[in-house]
Amino acid sequence: MVKRIGVLTSGGDAPGMNAAIRAIARKVIFDGNEIYGIRNGYKGLAEGEIKQLSINDVSDTLSKGGTMLYTARYPEFKEKAGQEKAIAQLERFGIDSLIVIGGDGSYHGAEALSKAGFPTVGIPGTIDNDIPGTDFTIGFDTACNTALDAVDKLRDTATSHMRTFIVEVMGRDAGDIALWTGLGSGAEQIIVPEAEFDMDKIVSEIDTGRDRGKKHTIIILAEGVMRGAEFEEKLNARGDYHARVTVLGHVQRGGSPSARDRVLASVFGYTAVELLNQGKSGVCVGIQGKDIVYNELTDVLAGGSNHQSYMSLYDINKEISY
Amino acid sequence: MVKRIGVLTSGGDAPGMNAAIRAIARKVIFDGNEIYGIRNGYKGLAEGEIKQLSINDVSDTLSKGGTMLYTARYPEFKEKAGQEKAIAQLERFGIDSLIVIGGDGSYHGAEALSKAGFPTVGIPGTIDNDIPGTDFTIGFDTACNTALDAVDKLRDTATSHMRTFIVEVMGRDAGDIALWTGLGSGAEQIIVPEAEFDMDKIVSEIDTGRDRGKKHTIIILAEGVMRGAEFEEKLNARGDYHARVTVLGHVQRGGSPSARDRVLASVFGYTAVELLNQGKSGVCVGIQGKDIVYNELTDVLAGGSNHQSYMSLYDINKEISY
Amino acid sequence: MVKRIGVLTSGGDAPGMNAAIRAIARKVIFDGNEIYGIRNGYKGLAEGEIKQLSINDVSDTLSKGGTMLYTARYPEFKEKAGQEKAIAQLERFGIDSLIVIGGDGSYHGAEALSKAGFPTVGIPGTIDNDIPGTDFTIGFDTACNTALDAVDKLRDTATSHMRTFIVEVMGRDAGDIALWTGLGSGAEQIIVPEAEFDMDKIVSEIDTGRDRGKKHTIIILAEGVMRGAEFEEKLNARGDYHARVTVLGHVQRGGSPSARDRVLASVFGYTAVELLNQGKSGVCVGIQGKDIVYNELTDVLAGGSNHQSYMSLYDINKEISY
Amino acid sequence: MVKRIGVLTSGGDAPGMNAAIRAIARKVIFDGNEIYGIRNGYKGLAEGEIKQLSINDVSDTLSKGGTMLYTARYPEFKEKAGQEKAIAQLERFGIDSLIVIGGDGSYHGAEALSKAGFPTVGIPGTIDNDIPGTDFTIGFDTACNTALDAVDKLRDTATSHMRTFIVEVMGRDAGDIALWTGLGSGAEQIIVPEAEFDMDKIVSEIDTGRDRGKKHTIIILAEGVMRGAEFEEKLNARGDYHARVTVLGHVQRGGSPSARDRVLASVFGYTAVELLNQGKSGVCVGIQGKDIVYNELTDVLAGGSNHQSYMSLYDINKEISY
Repeated sequence: MVKRIGVLTSGGDAPGMNAAIRAIARKVIFDGNEIYGIRNGYKGLAEGEIKQLSINDVSDTLSKGGTMLYTARYPEFKEKAGQEKAIAQLERFGIDSLIVIGGDGSYHGAEALSKAGFPTVGIPGTIDNDIPGTDFTIGFDTACNTALDAVDKLRDTATSHMRTFIVEVMGRDAGDIALWTGLGSGAEQIIVPEAEFDMDKIVSEIDTGRDRGKKHTIIILAEGVMRGAEFEEKLNARGDYHARVTVLGHVQRGGSPSARDRVLASVFGYTAVELLNQGKSGVCVGIQGKDIVYNELTDVLAGGSNHQSYMSLYDINKEISY
Repeated sequence: MVKRIGVLTSGGDAPGMNAAIRAIARKVIFDGNEIYGIRNGYKGLAEGEIKQLSINDVSDTLSKGGTMLYTARYPEFKEKAGQEKAIAQLERFGIDSLIVIGGDGSYHGAEALSKAGFPTVGIPGTIDNDIPGTDFTIGFDTACNTALDAVDKLRDTATSHMRTFIVEVMGRDAGDIALWTGLGSGAEQIIVPEAEFDMDKIVSEIDTGRDRGKKHTIIILAEGVMRGAEFEEKLNARGDYHARVTVLGHVQRGGSPSARDRVLASVFGYTAVELLNQGKSGVCVGIQGKDIVYNELTDVLAGGSNHQSYMSLYDINKEISY
Repeated sequence: MVKRIGVLTSGGDAPGMNAAIRAIARKVIFDGNEIYGIRNGYKGLAEGEIKQLSINDVSDTLSKGGTMLYTARYPEFKEKAGQEKAIAQLERFGIDSLIVIGGDGSYHGAEALSKAGFPTVGIPGTIDNDIPGTDFTIGFDTACNTALDAVDKLRDTATSHMRTFIVEVMGRDAGDIALWTGLGSGAEQIIVPEAEFDMDKIVSEIDTGRDRGKKHTIIILAEGVMRGAEFEEKLNARGDYHARVTVLGHVQRGGSPSARDRVLASVFGYTAVELLNQGKSGVCVGIQGKDIVYNELTDVLAGGSNHQSYMSLYDINKEISY
Repeated sequence: MVKRIGVLTSGGDAPGMNAAIRAIARKVIFDGNEIYGIRNGYKGLAEGEIKQLSINDVSDTLSKGGTMLYTARYPEFKEKAGQEKAIAQLERFGIDSLIVIGGDGSYHGAEALSKAGFPTVGIPGTIDNDIPGTDFTIGFDTACNTALDAVDKLRDTATSHMRTFIVEVMGRDAGDIALWTGLGSGAEQIIVPEAEFDMDKIVSEIDTGRDRGKKHTIIILAEGVMRGAEFEEKLNARGDYHARVTVLGHVQRGGSPSARDRVLASVFGYTAVELLNQGKSGVCVGIQGKDIVYNELTDVLAGGSNHQSYMSLYDINKEISY
């Protein structure tokens, strides 16, 4: 019997989400089943914005940023009523299982559906890289490359003037983008929510660098610590640093996904379909080393965050970019 | 007799300055003459930071952003005393003519040296594209491509959410970067110093777009009008626009120069040497259509700005990106 | 009365064609008229592959390479019969004027339609930059940046080994891509159809460079002179050059258009509609310096080629990249 | 007592080698020790091309492709005599341990030195990703992104014409670049040395795709199977495929390293110094999942290749890019 599988993206969009949707759609069709795209996340699910996808619908999407299924906020999905609406819509369309691509918040919804008896599998899609149980999430690699490219350009001009540059990158609770961008660009300072914020120490390290003859200082600041404009003001109040801020903002969410994110997304999408084929539910896909794995959503959500996972990069940077 | 030609970069750096320096150095050496690099602009000139350049010194610089000769502020050069110091240094090193790469302010210095009898030729190097007598300045094309790339990435994510994005680009008195980036990205609003600022009209046009079903609005703001953070605040005070700002800052000054900027810089550099070879002074190089031209520095400096030159792009955008 | 304007792309595709189509469509709709997209060039025109375009049809196309209207070969259009089929289709759809985006060959078709009494305007869209009457064609700037990026990467690795690299770029009769890429990358040799091919001289210049201590040689070869593999063989037969070829091929036709190409394409598209609005026919748009101009198709087609226009770059390169 | 550590790069260069050299140099100096750069690999080692590096020597190298220490072929190092020359040079400079960055062949040299009693640690640097004991080698990620970018551009133009495009990528014995590029770009065919070559099957799959209405076919070919020009000829002999080849060649070795390669290289460099600090020798660094590990060189060299490691990507692609 032909199965009908639904797919939605939820939360902040991330480069590679389209690659995952494409892999899901093509694998489902390869298997002889039907794939349904649900627009605008859980909101569209509750409101029935559901349409069958053909192979043509996903052609030329692999390389595109954003999500062709859109995403929206829908706090009502935390309530039983919202979830029931969703299940009613899924039944109306004869859909028998669902793949949810998104972050933390999206996984809560997927868990709720699974607990309500609807087969649901999650795929980690968020630039923040803050999902336990997987080394990487879809979009993180692209976001790091985007931020890094900006810092490279800053460095070109920084060497011409004695200047301090602050780059505000995304990351509310997780400093992963800041850490990778900072280590990848040789930034003198990386300021992340996971480390204690100590303005005196920062100023003193900048001064030491200048005393040693450094021509410029580059500071990568995760937005979760404070906004770039605020930090610029704080630093300039401390002395003649001529600090100037760059705020990349949502630029980090866009762009054509990197090779890494496309391969990851494709493999995650393929695997999520396979898991549904095997009758699994309430699980989410992940990568650990070279292994594609799956974890219980409940464990992942209980697992707290993996914010600390890359903190060794923070320490290494202290010894190679002083 | 072997001639000694000096070269310096002054003012804000621009991608392609290194390509110009390289072309100058190699052409001078090809001619059998000597080339001297002056570091830190007019400041380094007055202080004697001068060194002969070999072909090796300029190897692998063509593709690099920034300026290998550095640049610095030096307000003292407006005074006679500063200029005399410079000429003394030039004589000390036996340098008999000078090429200055920079913008408006740098041209004033070049004019002063020329009037004082020292053979000097200018090359327009500034991302702002605000030098009369030339269609384009070195660095403008690269800066536009950098800004455009950021807006493209924003658009990817903008289509997933109902959002208003503000992108602050460089341009204190000249809106050229904003105009080209805006037209090149299909931005709904381009806000430049050359046009009257009318918040009511902006808000009303955004509302019209939303009423017609637009999913997002992209606004390109030249920093000369106001800072992005200020505009974000103003706009969000007007309604539920969820406006969010991206500030590219000095990122626009960096990056490997585009094909256009490299070719322009190489041809400008070559031509400046030729002009000195022909005994010209007090002139600056430019491009008009396919023709490489030169103008009197005095005329260019008197010519006011050419800010208005691309304002037709502003009007065109109103009819194709409403 | 509402006018109906058709648009087609013909010949080899070029980055920026979509930007032109978008500008045309939006301007036509802004004017209160109707725009019809014709697929697969003159072939689709003769066969009636014609569909009205809405604003949504051109949304998110500005930044995309290729052409959303496709293109195809159709030698039959040189014959009267083919042209009559086309006019019959245009009448069937009530289309009263036509914009053709393409190169040389496409202009012949446009001229024929215009002579047959059907109002037709041309836009120069080809990466080869070989259309008289305009400084630049749509796509050329992007193609140069793509080729340049490849040569930059080659240079990174070339400095590690004593090697000779050959890069075959597009250009059957026109060496413009080779010239700009060569000058922009500081290539030691630029081989174009416009210059006499002299293997002895090439080998002798390479040898001179090696004797002077050059670590590597980069040769840009326009495909019109000979294929890269053939040149590789010829050169390696002359000595121990370890020459290795890179063939970029159709990669040069793709990619998101550069700022320059997007602005050019938008302005050309806008202007072509204006020309039709003014009752013009048998003309084509162009840029000369900062001026948007138009020329008679007949003059442009008679004008031979403008292959020689950038040959001064060839001479300049000899003096700055020896 | 101050330790003296040497570093060299050997074999084909790879993007990220400079990032590794920089991390090694800065870490060694941070530790209060001295770092010596050896130019031109084992050849330069045997010939004494050795120079102490300061922090300035590695500044602004992190983002650069190639290797600032150059690399060269030196088959003599397989012989005892070559190795003894090298050890004599190391003793002459008072260097007490060595870090070798390179691939397979380079590891043989490192093993020989270690067996001869000279403390030596290896770092996997090769775009081929064919070193056992590590998930990834330095340079692989950047090479994949470069190849992917080319295929993306091809696809733009491929959709305008009915065409078959062949892209020859690097990989003599290992198909990793082909696999990642192919999966990342949704290529219809991936041809790697690890899979049996079956021309009939390839042609039949292309035909099936065309019958289903596919507008174009993209084939990624690892150079180890055959050269692109040869495959082009073979395929066109089978029918009307209009196949055209792109040969990226050494372009894949260059370019600014990706975020992934920079972080990997930095962490590898740091770790190699730490291993020497701990008195280790005859080992090489690797990454397995999130863990930085080290393996015995002897085991790694005996371990054959890990060519097969990503062959599951090959199978997945068959089900999602048919």
